[in-house]
Amino acid sequence: MAIRLGEIVDALGGELEGDRAQSIERLAPLATAQRDAISFLSNPKYRKELAASKAGCVIVAPSMRESAAERGAFIVASDPYLYFARLTQLWRKTHARPDTALIHPSAVIDPDATIDPTARIGALCVVERGARIGADTVLKSRVTVSEDCIIGDRCLLHPGVVIGADGFGLAPHEGAWVKIEQLGAVRIGNDVEIGANTCIDRGALEDTVIEDGVKLDNLIQIGHNVRIGKHTAMAGCAAVAGSATIGAHCTIGGRAGVLGHLTIADHVHISSTSLVTRSIHKPGHYTGVFPIDDNAAWEKNAATLKQLHSLRERLKALEKMTMQDKKS
Amino acid sequence: MAIRLGEIVDALGGELEGDRAQSIERLAPLATAQRDAISFLSNPKYRKELAASKAGCVIVAPSMRESAAERGAFIVASDPYLYFARLTQLWRKTHARPDTALIHPSAVIDPDATIDPTARIGALCVVERGARIGADTVLKSRVTVSEDCIIGDRCLLHPGVVIGADGFGLAPHEGAWVKIEQLGAVRIGNDVEIGANTCIDRGALEDTVIEDGVKLDNLIQIGHNVRIGKHTAMAGCAAVAGSATIGAHCTIGGRAGVLGHLTIADHVHISSTSLVTRSIHKPGHYTGVFPIDDNAAWEKNAATLKQLHSLRERLKALEKMTMQDKKS
Amino acid sequence: MAIRLGEIVDALGGELEGDRAQSIERLAPLATAQRDAISFLSNPKYRKELAASKAGCVIVAPSMRESAAERGAFIVASDPYLYFARLTQLWRKTHARPDTALIHPSAVIDPDATIDPTARIGALCVVERGARIGADTVLKSRVTVSEDCIIGDRCLLHPGVVIGADGFGLAPHEGAWVKIEQLGAVRIGNDVEIGANTCIDRGALEDTVIEDGVKLDNLIQIGHNVRIGKHTAMAGCAAVAGSATIGAHCTIGGRAGVLGHLTIADHVHISSTSLVTRSIHKPGHYTGVFPIDDNAAWEKNAATLKQLHSLRERLKALEKMTMQDKKS
Repeated sequence: MAIRLGEIVDALGGELEGDRAQSIERLAPLATAQRDAISFLSNPKYRKELAASKAGCVIVAPSMRESAAERGAFIVASDPYLYFARLTQLWRKTHARPDTALIHPSAVIDPDATIDPTARIGALCVVERGARIGADTVLKSRVTVSEDCIIGDRCLLHPGVVIGADGFGLAPHEGAWVKIEQLGAVRIGNDVEIGANTCIDRGALEDTVIEDGVKLDNLIQIGHNVRIGKHTAMAGCAAVAGSATIGAHCTIGGRAGVLGHLTIADHVHISSTSLVTRSIHKPGHYTGVFPIDDNAAWEKNAATLKQLHSLRERLKALEKMTMQDKKS
Repeated sequence: MAIRLGEIVDALGGELEGDRAQSIERLAPLATAQRDAISFLSNPKYRKELAASKAGCVIVAPSMRESAAERGAFIVASDPYLYFARLTQLWRKTHARPDTALIHPSAVIDPDATIDPTARIGALCVVERGARIGADTVLKSRVTVSEDCIIGDRCLLHPGVVIGADGFGLAPHEGAWVKIEQLGAVRIGNDVEIGANTCIDRGALEDTVIEDGVKLDNLIQIGHNVRIGKHTAMAGCAAVAGSATIGAHCTIGGRAGVLGHLTIADHVHISSTSLVTRSIHKPGHYTGVFPIDDNAAWEKNAATLKQLHSLRERLKALEKMTMQDKKS
Repeated sequence: MAIRLGEIVDALGGELEGDRAQSIERLAPLATAQRDAISFLSNPKYRKELAASKAGCVIVAPSMRESAAERGAFIVASDPYLYFARLTQLWRKTHARPDTALIHPSAVIDPDATIDPTARIGALCVVERGARIGADTVLKSRVTVSEDCIIGDRCLLHPGVVIGADGFGLAPHEGAWVKIEQLGAVRIGNDVEIGANTCIDRGALEDTVIEDGVKLDNLIQIGHNVRIGKHTAMAGCAAVAGSATIGAHCTIGGRAGVLGHLTIADHVHISSTSLVTRSIHKPGHYTGVFPIDDNAAWEKNAATLKQLHSLRERLKALEKMTMQDKKS
């Protein structure tokens, strides 16, 4: 299962300083890599770890060439992290075990679903009527794609994903709730990855839309009629309420939330846990998190927080009084 | 698949101004509706959208009759949003594709489970022994209903729902945890809807109870021995810890939390993301969310927040000093 | 299905005051227990409930002996809550219904997976190639254990659990994301319990590790290369980002979060909902939650919070001015 350094640079480019025939048995972090492993350094602040690493070869940026040269074989790449990403893909490809059927026999596929002949549908998946699954798309085990939902090409859906459950649509009536049937579907573009147990609801009238290249981590909730722009990435447990529109190239931190019907511009970055309560029209980095503290300190500050507005009023009064004193 | 305006008002009431024979091909929002669509206006603030809409027919409140008349066919209903909800249901009913078996052959139903003959059990569901599923209840695909759990009539459980997993019960013992077997079950009333991948744990000794008409969105966690009162609705990713009791007609926002053993009165509304840390005995609207800001401003304010209590003390001291100056 | 008091103390120890032949039909809380039930009192503050309880027998601490004696049969145990936990286990064992096959025929087990002959694999589980499941471990229904992941002995995985989905690894490149294949796996120790729909991601290069005795509630997200120390417990909807290391004997409250690459010492307790944004090296109790309030009060305080830093500056200025006045 080994790969030679020469094969790596032949496949991925980069400039190798070292023996093309040297054999690599695994990929490993700098700190734990041994002679049989290749590693990488993407951040100059780990320079010390580079010197100490026992890795058989390291991938480095041009600026690290000299430091790398002191310790053995290395590959120079303009973006070592990207190079490393591609190396993991090469590794996966060369180490792929022969796969079984493209459509696992335990999957439940409606005869009126359309599955591209190159798609892979894992064990115990459900693909309902009218659904379409694009070329080279992979559904791991236990994924549900509901009626009429569309998944593009080269997508990867992890176990437990639910595409196209009903959005949460209710009209109040005499103290009870009347269901609004969700007549839209979900449309997912190309190159989208969706993490385990993440849910994307179908639209009420029109479709929920996930554009090309979007990456969603695990346990994320996407409400009905949300639209997520190209190449936006969202970390685990994020939640987007109905009819929100999120731009392209955004990053939404883990556990962050977006209220319904808001608009978020392109290139907006939301910190973990923060709740977006108003539309954001300017690119930038936004945060709203209560700082963690030891519990005793938190209790004091949290209690005072409930008087914050009145503290401001008291400060104002005091300022006024002091100013008057000055004048008098 | 079209429906005529006359058929709509025959089924749902309302006052039609327009041609009973006019054919409707779809339901659509005002902004995107074309001649072949019916739309609705529930909020007078969207009056402008009404005027601009190309919809073939709109559902409006009596107060909007004149505005609606300027643009074509319309139906007057006392509550247009409710009327629209019922129209989605009519639409779904008239457009239903013939369903396959009531119990999908891939579902795993214990012989000692009791399934009402009108219930529908979707693909790859699991219904364990002693469980009971009521009349006209629908389990979509990949739902688990564990031992002895009871689901009422006309319920709708979306994919990935887990009813009756063990509650999180542990007794500490010499640095480790001893499991408390969860001997209760889950009892769910009638007309309850439960969103995708939502979990409702079985009780420790007695049952976890979800009363009639409760609506739960996706990815919600309901701990053991929780009780949720009638017609309470909870948005996505909310979480209720063990033994909390939530009243009837409450709304719990998305990502909100309720600590264990608390009681929340009827008609309480909790904002998204807020954590309920004490019992709430008065109806009303409650919130606890750190306001989002651009990250630089947040950093300053969050850092200062850690000194809030001491700021209050300093303010107090200053007030005292100023007051003394006044007196002297 | 009844059990006699004598059988209980024979199995679990403790000192019985009462009739060994007295029959117990159920376990129940003090408040609702009837003559046929056994209950327990773990917290002296519920002393009143003890006096009022109709339970046929109660488990109490030595200090409660006299109060218990006033009302009927009782068992004295040094730790009544622990005794009660063990009683639930005894109850479960004596009431176990005969189980069907160890491996449910609907489960999809790869021929290259290794399942201990004493393990139980529930309906519609997926165990992929290279995975190993230890002795006496139970996978309830609809659990996925992905390629090469290892589960120890005596573990309990609830429905919908996903072990070994890909971690969220992406390298940015020209505005898009390049996938980092996740080449590590997940290693789970002995006596670990994992709640419904919880996800534990596989490592990027090395493994994600869950040590012995860890207890995870429902809907928890554990990122790639996280390590969780022995006997740490985490409540529902908690989330731990990639490469975080959490010590032993910690408790992480529900909905709490831990950012990536942080280290948390042993014996750290994080309150519900709090976000850990920096490493914690000292045992203790940490909190960061915006206190809930009625919405009107919250609005005022939250608005003022955005000026908190400038309020501090104004206070400083005022202090300086007042001090100067004093001096002059």
